[in-house]
Amino acid sequence: MVDEWIFKGSSRVSEMKLAQDISRPKADIAALVELVHADMQRVNETILKLTGSDVAMIPEVANHLISSGGKRLRPMLTLATAGLCAYGGDGHIKLAASVEFMHTATLLHDDVVDQSDMRRGKQSARMLWGNEASVLVGDFLLGQAFKMMVDVGSLPCLGVLANAAAVIAEGEVMQLSVAKHMDTSEDAYLDVIRSKTAALFAAASEVGPILAGRTPTDIENCRSYGMNLGIAFQLIDDALDYGGSSATLGKNVGDDLREGKITLPVILAFRRGSTLERAFWTRVIEQADVQDGDLETAQTYMKNHRAIEDTIDRARHYGALAKAALHTFPESAWKNALLEVVNFCVARGH
Amino acid sequence: MVDEWIFKGSSRVSEMKLAQDISRPKADIAALVELVHADMQRVNETILKLTGSDVAMIPEVANHLISSGGKRLRPMLTLATAGLCAYGGDGHIKLAASVEFMHTATLLHDDVVDQSDMRRGKQSARMLWGNEASVLVGDFLLGQAFKMMVDVGSLPCLGVLANAAAVIAEGEVMQLSVAKHMDTSEDAYLDVIRSKTAALFAAASEVGPILAGRTPTDIENCRSYGMNLGIAFQLIDDALDYGGSSATLGKNVGDDLREGKITLPVILAFRRGSTLERAFWTRVIEQADVQDGDLETAQTYMKNHRAIEDTIDRARHYGALAKAALHTFPESAWKNALLEVVNFCVARGH
Repeated sequence: MVDEWIFKGSSRVSEMKLAQDISRPKADIAALVELVHADMQRVNETILKLTGSDVAMIPEVANHLISSGGKRLRPMLTLATAGLCAYGGDGHIKLAASVEFMHTATLLHDDVVDQSDMRRGKQSARMLWGNEASVLVGDFLLGQAFKMMVDVGSLPCLGVLANAAAVIAEGEVMQLSVAKHMDTSEDAYLDVIRSKTAALFAAASEVGPILAGRTPTDIENCRSYGMNLGIAFQLIDDALDYGGSSATLGKNVGDDLREGKITLPVILAFRRGSTLERAFWTRVIEQADVQDGDLETAQTYMKNHRAIEDTIDRARHYGALAKAALHTFPESAWKNALLEVVNFCVARGH
Repeated sequence: MVDEWIFKGSSRVSEMKLAQDISRPKADIAALVELVHADMQRVNETILKLTGSDVAMIPEVANHLISSGGKRLRPMLTLATAGLCAYGGDGHIKLAASVEFMHTATLLHDDVVDQSDMRRGKQSARMLWGNEASVLVGDFLLGQAFKMMVDVGSLPCLGVLANAAAVIAEGEVMQLSVAKHMDTSEDAYLDVIRSKTAALFAAASEVGPILAGRTPTDIENCRSYGMNLGIAFQLIDDALDYGGSSATLGKNVGDDLREGKITLPVILAFRRGSTLERAFWTRVIEQADVQDGDLETAQTYMKNHRAIEDTIDRARHYGALAKAALHTFPESAWKNALLEVVNFCVARGH
């Protein structure tokens, strides 16, 4: 499945179609990939140019992550919403690259925060180059992102992306605060993912219509599309962490459990669990005492309480909101591709 | 000495004068502090407001550092160069606060990179709240800084500060690469401090004249003032790390040695040292094998080769360049205060 999410600079859409025939879910992002193909080439060239530095370690670390098969979903949202709004300039290329840089910086910093050993199926940058390089190369990419935004010259776009940068960091700190607290409410958790994940999806989708000079309503609708898609995306990610298989995910099932992360499946299973089950969750998450077989036990409890199904149901709900947000836009290939992204995202959970 | 560098929100200039009477060097920054006093109150209020967050950990960590007696020299440069250029608006307040946020973010990230236990004589944020909080609160402050710049609405100022953000990170990565390499040249080292320290001094001094709509020459001269002052400032800092006393510095003499940092005094002492001395530097810096008495030995070798004196001489050279850069500006209280800052900075080394 994960292959369909990867944008490869040189990939042909026919390859994507082939993958689609073999895999189960019908929804995919081939239409989106095809529509943004030419623009995405330019984004990739921009990324390559902007990670260049006389300081050899910078392109090394940055390219390790950027070229390691990330989804490139966020910059595609910028390109596609610009397309949806019939934007005629080329500011969307640099803004899309900025969005990817902001995302990459977040991943680099997350590795330090989570003390992750793996990222996208490869050793994490912090394992290869140390915490120092992860922190500093992340900072460098953030600086380059803002330089590109200045080049584009749209203050409203700068405002949206600067705000996202602050909100993402705020969300991550929030996650740090709720981490290990079994009494985290579903609402508090939704606040976290709204900030740490969905804010960048929202910003990525908002700058397209801003560049195109669209009405506040259109801008707000694109933002709402991105925000709700981002929430759905994260919830499905949370669900997949307790299902699926390592090979198809590029990350290991059970990572969240091992890191003692509170996610929606855990919140639901805890809330619905017996005293015995709650003691299990408290030991594993709050006391970070994870033993052999705990993942299987967690999966059993979640199954018994429909925690995964309900997490996916919530994701479907936000997916529906994302699609509804585009109602002001007439039918177009761009609109269909954006709607298909939502289907694909939610279909991952099956 | 360090007290004279601290801008206290409520401090009276008379207190500064008292401190000045007691301490040796005649140069001080009392004139500057007095001139920017009213503006600095507004900067402090802005800082306080912008570190506010519903996520309790953010103001906690941010205020730990921001209120712990930092020099506030960088935002003062923004205010003073705006004053020098007779700027009549109030964009300089938010830009000064942005500069301080950028600096604070750098300090938070530096603590993670250097694995520092102490910062400004207090336990470092990473010791109190962990690497996670240092990384993320740093990111939050950076995001807030860019939001404030967007509020001010000057794209050229945004460009200057975004560029500084990228260059600072690049300089830090550069320092990571040269760290532990005894064959680092004086030029390579100057490149490092030009990026990691002086770039923010330069940007802080450049945005004032930009806001005031001054000529490219005036802008370039203010930038040059900041850049050269920043280099002088860092060189004196390097010298003080092998002299002075812990109480007056707020940091411990010998920190650089213990962290195996290559600085100019080390480069000069190594270059001029005997085979035996070079073996000492290689053990201490490259192999990070620091033993009791090594600091005293290092100081002796530096004394024998005039490494400290020559570092201070270089600082004096850059200080002279900083002063000369202001030649296009007529006499004024602002100009005198800015010239006095250079004197004070270099005088710290005596």
